[in-house]
Amino acid sequence: MSTDAGAWRTETDSLGEKRIPADALWGINTARAEENFALTGRPCGDLRDLVWAFGAVKLAACRANAEQGLLPEAKRQAIEEACRELMEGSLDEWIVVDRVQGGAGTSTNMNVNEVVANRALRFLGHQPGTYDVIDPLDHVNRSQSTNDTYPTAVRLAIHRAVERLIPALGRLAVEFDARAADFADIVKIGRTQLQDAVPMTLGQEFAAFAETVREDAARLEELLPHLREINLGATAIGTGITAPTGYRASAVAALSEITGLRLVSAGDLIEATSDTGVFVLSSGLLKRCAVKLSKISNDLRLLSSGPQAGLQEIVLPALQAGSSIMPGKVNPVLPEAVNQVAFTVVGADASVTMAAEAGQLQLNAFEPVIASSLLDSAGLLTRAADLLTERCVRGIRANGERITARTRGSLAVATSLTPLLGYARTAELVKEVLSGHRTLGELILERGLLDEEQLDAALAPANLTGARPARADT
Amino acid sequence: MSTDAGAWRTETDSLGEKRIPADALWGINTARAEENFALTGRPCGDLRDLVWAFGAVKLAACRANAEQGLLPEAKRQAIEEACRELMEGSLDEWIVVDRVQGGAGTSTNMNVNEVVANRALRFLGHQPGTYDVIDPLDHVNRSQSTNDTYPTAVRLAIHRAVERLIPALGRLAVEFDARAADFADIVKIGRTQLQDAVPMTLGQEFAAFAETVREDAARLEELLPHLREINLGATAIGTGITAPTGYRASAVAALSEITGLRLVSAGDLIEATSDTGVFVLSSGLLKRCAVKLSKISNDLRLLSSGPQAGLQEIVLPALQAGSSIMPGKVNPVLPEAVNQVAFTVVGADASVTMAAEAGQLQLNAFEPVIASSLLDSAGLLTRAADLLTERCVRGIRANGERITARTRGSLAVATSLTPLLGYARTAELVKEVLSGHRTLGELILERGLLDEEQLDAALAPANLTGARPARADT
Amino acid sequence: MSTDAGAWRTETDSLGEKRIPADALWGINTARAEENFALTGRPCGDLRDLVWAFGAVKLAACRANAEQGLLPEAKRQAIEEACRELMEGSLDEWIVVDRVQGGAGTSTNMNVNEVVANRALRFLGHQPGTYDVIDPLDHVNRSQSTNDTYPTAVRLAIHRAVERLIPALGRLAVEFDARAADFADIVKIGRTQLQDAVPMTLGQEFAAFAETVREDAARLEELLPHLREINLGATAIGTGITAPTGYRASAVAALSEITGLRLVSAGDLIEATSDTGVFVLSSGLLKRCAVKLSKISNDLRLLSSGPQAGLQEIVLPALQAGSSIMPGKVNPVLPEAVNQVAFTVVGADASVTMAAEAGQLQLNAFEPVIASSLLDSAGLLTRAADLLTERCVRGIRANGERITARTRGSLAVATSLTPLLGYARTAELVKEVLSGHRTLGELILERGLLDEEQLDAALAPANLTGARPARADT
Amino acid sequence: MSTDAGAWRTETDSLGEKRIPADALWGINTARAEENFALTGRPCGDLRDLVWAFGAVKLAACRANAEQGLLPEAKRQAIEEACRELMEGSLDEWIVVDRVQGGAGTSTNMNVNEVVANRALRFLGHQPGTYDVIDPLDHVNRSQSTNDTYPTAVRLAIHRAVERLIPALGRLAVEFDARAADFADIVKIGRTQLQDAVPMTLGQEFAAFAETVREDAARLEELLPHLREINLGATAIGTGITAPTGYRASAVAALSEITGLRLVSAGDLIEATSDTGVFVLSSGLLKRCAVKLSKISNDLRLLSSGPQAGLQEIVLPALQAGSSIMPGKVNPVLPEAVNQVAFTVVGADASVTMAAEAGQLQLNAFEPVIASSLLDSAGLLTRAADLLTERCVRGIRANGERITARTRGSLAVATSLTPLLGYARTAELVKEVLSGHRTLGELILERGLLDEEQLDAALAPANLTGARPARADT
Repeated sequence: MSTDAGAWRTETDSLGEKRIPADALWGINTARAEENFALTGRPCGDLRDLVWAFGAVKLAACRANAEQGLLPEAKRQAIEEACRELMEGSLDEWIVVDRVQGGAGTSTNMNVNEVVANRALRFLGHQPGTYDVIDPLDHVNRSQSTNDTYPTAVRLAIHRAVERLIPALGRLAVEFDARAADFADIVKIGRTQLQDAVPMTLGQEFAAFAETVREDAARLEELLPHLREINLGATAIGTGITAPTGYRASAVAALSEITGLRLVSAGDLIEATSDTGVFVLSSGLLKRCAVKLSKISNDLRLLSSGPQAGLQEIVLPALQAGSSIMPGKVNPVLPEAVNQVAFTVVGADASVTMAAEAGQLQLNAFEPVIASSLLDSAGLLTRAADLLTERCVRGIRANGERITARTRGSLAVATSLTPLLGYARTAELVKEVLSGHRTLGELILERGLLDEEQLDAALAPANLTGARPARADT
Repeated sequence: MSTDAGAWRTETDSLGEKRIPADALWGINTARAEENFALTGRPCGDLRDLVWAFGAVKLAACRANAEQGLLPEAKRQAIEEACRELMEGSLDEWIVVDRVQGGAGTSTNMNVNEVVANRALRFLGHQPGTYDVIDPLDHVNRSQSTNDTYPTAVRLAIHRAVERLIPALGRLAVEFDARAADFADIVKIGRTQLQDAVPMTLGQEFAAFAETVREDAARLEELLPHLREINLGATAIGTGITAPTGYRASAVAALSEITGLRLVSAGDLIEATSDTGVFVLSSGLLKRCAVKLSKISNDLRLLSSGPQAGLQEIVLPALQAGSSIMPGKVNPVLPEAVNQVAFTVVGADASVTMAAEAGQLQLNAFEPVIASSLLDSAGLLTRAADLLTERCVRGIRANGERITARTRGSLAVATSLTPLLGYARTAELVKEVLSGHRTLGELILERGLLDEEQLDAALAPANLTGARPARADT
Repeated sequence: MSTDAGAWRTETDSLGEKRIPADALWGINTARAEENFALTGRPCGDLRDLVWAFGAVKLAACRANAEQGLLPEAKRQAIEEACRELMEGSLDEWIVVDRVQGGAGTSTNMNVNEVVANRALRFLGHQPGTYDVIDPLDHVNRSQSTNDTYPTAVRLAIHRAVERLIPALGRLAVEFDARAADFADIVKIGRTQLQDAVPMTLGQEFAAFAETVREDAARLEELLPHLREINLGATAIGTGITAPTGYRASAVAALSEITGLRLVSAGDLIEATSDTGVFVLSSGLLKRCAVKLSKISNDLRLLSSGPQAGLQEIVLPALQAGSSIMPGKVNPVLPEAVNQVAFTVVGADASVTMAAEAGQLQLNAFEPVIASSLLDSAGLLTRAADLLTERCVRGIRANGERITARTRGSLAVATSLTPLLGYARTAELVKEVLSGHRTLGELILERGLLDEEQLDAALAPANLTGARPARADT
Repeated sequence: MSTDAGAWRTETDSLGEKRIPADALWGINTARAEENFALTGRPCGDLRDLVWAFGAVKLAACRANAEQGLLPEAKRQAIEEACRELMEGSLDEWIVVDRVQGGAGTSTNMNVNEVVANRALRFLGHQPGTYDVIDPLDHVNRSQSTNDTYPTAVRLAIHRAVERLIPALGRLAVEFDARAADFADIVKIGRTQLQDAVPMTLGQEFAAFAETVREDAARLEELLPHLREINLGATAIGTGITAPTGYRASAVAALSEITGLRLVSAGDLIEATSDTGVFVLSSGLLKRCAVKLSKISNDLRLLSSGPQAGLQEIVLPALQAGSSIMPGKVNPVLPEAVNQVAFTVVGADASVTMAAEAGQLQLNAFEPVIASSLLDSAGLLTRAADLLTERCVRGIRANGERITARTRGSLAVATSLTPLLGYARTAELVKEVLSGHRTLGELILERGLLDEEQLDAALAPANLTGARPARADT
């Protein structure tokens, strides 16, 4: 943030006085917090969704206070305008407290209160720090506590981040479906436990990627209503102390209108104030999504292994030179990056779990690390899904020739004989083929186990995959 | 399992021959697997829900095969009877393969196939091993693969385990509610970040425990439909190879009838065969439940700390002598055990996550450790919830006298003055009280900040907690 | 445990009376604990190393008490004899409390005290329960607390378990070395990021497995001294209350003699009593070992993928039929089991981490789950290593022919041209080969980039791997 | 980075051409990677230790190449100078690739190669991009691969980060020792399982904090030699392909000299190239340290709970206003921040574990997320330790009066009577005191169990803690 280096103002709190750059929109509480939590170097102002959400919460509170007759019109207008700027992002640079902070989010709330107050003061033609006109606590934070505004803002922020992740997963699924259509006629050997199993089409394989991603999007949709259950108006511990009757309903209604979301008050506000269940749930679902994307990335890397000594069933688009020493090497760098995003999300889930478990009595003091972890995870997954869609899946080509060559004469068709010949006899035949130089068909015909027509019907890979459509009819 | 030590039969598979105790209900595949996976010493037969579920799956497959004309009536009857015994538990001792096993559950399936076949053979008056009459693979496993029966059985087993956990959580919530009623009139100091915050009742605190547990039960309810989506009939990789047309629908219908559950086929059977999303989801919800129970246990331990140098707001029932050296010491052993159950469940979630991520191509070979981890977790949580209900929460008493003494004169009421005096002035008063020997009321009256009536209204703790009912009215 | 169902004795503690089976070697504290912790169904008596260690600790304490004149000779003899039986395993069935228990191990210690007392009473011709002669607390537990004996016993138990794991890793390394020797002359294509990289020998690949396992054994060796630092004599919180001067030194010396280990007292006994650092360290090292074995298992599964549509560089020994539906399929079941052991160990590490973090003030109440997790992990890894050695690595064969065919004409040799031709020009050549039908050599000769002699020297795969011995000479 | 927006140069790689800002020090590989990995928005240039380390590695390689006669003097000088700037930090802004990246670090290496080449070109009076004079690959990367330079640089970077953490822990221990000295005479009630146990001094409690932190510093010291074992010279997969004989020894010697560290070549370079064991080890030790700091923070928060309704044994320095609603509230914000740092480190360990396990065959492609996680963790712990030292532990005061009042008359002294009265009789006395209104001393004297002199000796808390010095004499 840019401040006029020469000029200072003095602010006071119950710990004493402190010099603040004269034109800084934050104040003494922010200044102390910045010093206390010099940890990650990553300010909360970087958490766009959280700042947006906090702006919305402060705006809703402001309106509800005004409705209760607690804020004169001029102040209301100025505060509202400042909140709107906070939502839109033009004040991000003033939200400077570290994302890892003690105090259950109090420092973020204080930072927001101070920035809103000072920005509102500017609107009214006052210098920052003129708190007798608009006070960060008595006016901006009126009828509120960190303990209801912060958890509410965090829920909204995660809601918004997840709302971006869902369509990103949708786009990825669409792209996988497009490849599934491209590859619908390529019959290949399906693999279980990395061993040749039975035939399928490459299209079926990619359709399964699409489906599994879509299922995650659906699970994330089901999460959203839980995130819309908030404790705004609960104030310090859920009893609503300092908030006048009517404030809570009014504030929740205002926040619904501002955000366009159908928000509801939690049934038990004391429970809701310390509860982090929805964060553990969110984290679990983000982790599930990470696990899926990682599994898919692993498969893409396996199927594209080669170019000469691997499975080489598909070719990923070349994105960059793969090696500083091996010329011409092209690596599956995007799936590898997605794997690492997944590992990061799994790690974040461990942090969220520990932080959630560590809550005590009427509050969980560790929500800042929960918020930061979840917002990072959702953002990373969104970007990973989009990069995977656009820079990898879109350009995947099949190595049709090689797949077909390998499928022809494969023993993976033998399974289809078991209803005809029994398991044990078929196993014997397979063993004989693998250790000798005869094909399965030759042995069967030679021994008169089946006639040629039966054999063709039983062993044509395309029949085997097509006979049983993957889409269920139940 | 007891076997006649003197007698043996010989079985054969594609690897060769092996001697099997003559009256053993398992066969050669089980015997090999037992040797290969001598790892945990904990046989799958201990996983009651899994054996029940596998029995149900085999029974359903048997009926569907019979409907397809693939099983003569006598064999069907015998196999059905054996499956029913498997479901009921009388064959558990014969399911001997280790719960941690390679092969994606093949060994469990093989063990089940062999036991069902041999038990059915007994019904028909044959010796175990007379596989030309009933073959474990060609008859019992007909139209099936491990890769559809095992994931289906695991889903059903987890469903059943979760169905037991939900009411256990319900009972715990009811008991917390009973304590909430008992303690409804005890006004205490709520704490945030372990620091005195504002007043509440001990009843409100316990009501929040009830509510938070009930929410977890609700989330687990929402999990159940996802567990009822199965891939039975998908066989090896989802293409349904070896299963005749009509088999799948018939088998799913039979399984629904047998279990009384509304089961549905997965939309994409290829996806469903390798997908472990529902297990990651289940694990995340069990972990959420663990985190909640651990947080509650931490609170119970904190609130009962003492008996002289702690918070001593409540007294937990004494369950056992607490120390081998400190006479008269009584410890919060049950909450401590619940904490450890929670840590175990969190650990199991890490195992499930890694196993799920490790799936490759058309199968996840690591479902055995997923199944074992989830079934352990659900069982542990159920027992922990019940023990907590019956041996701890039921007997909790409040230390009413001590709480009341501490609440009287507490500064935690000061927050209610901020709408009247402003934040900064109230903070100054609090500081003065803490460092001097005057009470808050004395200072306020002395300085004429409020009159006595105003003061009484503002500072009566009971008013403060009662004014704002925790139950929301929005 | 077998008890005469008809006969009972009555025992008393500060909570009241309880009927105990007359011939039970455990007493009232055990009986209460068994009821309180009906959680896992897995009694501590199954933790052989822990029971052995507890026997050793009680024996050492007994000797030290006798030296201090606190135990008459007859009692000492009887108690010593009982402790020796505990060490040897004949009393395991009487150690019945659940492995997950509240109370920081108090119940295990109480169980041990009661069993030793009652067994000693038997030696002296008394009935179990005749505690006026030998009392579980005043005699067997004399000068002790759970809080020094339990952590000491846990350390010794883990020490012993790790001492078994180290040679198991050694045997695995030896077996990998044997394969490395077998495969020393098979030149193959090394792979990075699953893409063909540069040549190496299959022997070098297996030698790396040996080396990486040996390194883990070395790290575990370095752990042992830390486990030999104990807090015996610290009693309740480290101040040594109730233990006479001289007792501690005497007890530690006795325990060293009994176990044959060079044990030392922790420098700060108060710190040592609540500290779980060595357990976190142990868990981290077991996890490292798990990660290594899992990575190796993944590689073995990749290299043996096939038999027709995979990398098929090696063949793992067939251990069991691989599929209930696909005849002749053989799966890498042992590496898969090892993967799952690894996932279990990683999960256990998460449990240990949370339990360690949850310690409060002068004690960590959660050591039972730490002990159980670590002992399980060490045991699982030991058995996994041995099974991998004997049932997998010992029988691995190379697919020499196929490897050689694939290596011939591979582009993986191109890297060796970069010092001669530069990176960019070599990359162009590789691209041309991959998209056309000429070999690398043909292009180079045709364009006169190198003469034939230079080319042979640069491209012979065997030269490339042999030129630079993997063993370092620095 | 600032670039002249109007001017461009064109660079080419095997994928084609790309326009690069004319004065950019990075080139085409960096540009592609930046687009491919738009994930975290956190460039590698922020990882100061990693850039320093990479500069050192490139410098060492340059010298070794020169010694081998592979680099003319002028180029050597220019490259060396550029490497030195990289080490010192003035080129950080040009290291722009994302910290989460596919390709096993190739993009970071490419970025470094390009920046060094272009900076060196500037020294020689050439424009960036004049690669025929100095080429990023053929000159800067000569005799190297990403696969040896990146792992080497990561090891050095972590080494440096850990070298900063160790003294930070040392300073924290010193500060705890200072408080231990301050509080040496304050006798308090030690607590196990949050229940009153036996007497100790507050000084002993703080001395244990010092000791436990020092032990972690010692464990981290033991880690350093393992980090100094490097694979520089191994090139692509450990066979040293493209590196001339003598290069490796020369490069390792140069790197030792440049860094002042006693570096050694790994014994098996093939193993060392894919091995991540030392990273798992590092992560485990950082996690151990995190667990310790979190446990200490929990204790500080417990002991300072209050100010009226908690344990209030100590007072933490007030750092900021604690609440936006509760005036005068001061929270333990620094310990809370340390808790969250710890949760973050535990999460990072989960990421490292998964990444390490995911390595395949001759390389671990996921080292970028390992490096990023470990460097973050070490940095966070260092800053957390320093903030805890300076802003919390330094200013802790004891609530001596309150502690003493609570200790007087505490039953925690009862344990010292057990050697005199036996466990059962003492337990009865404790129970009687807790349920009645008599003190322990009164009951004992009244019943003639001890005379007054015996009683004084047995029950004086100061004797009890002092009698047994925490420092061991064995």
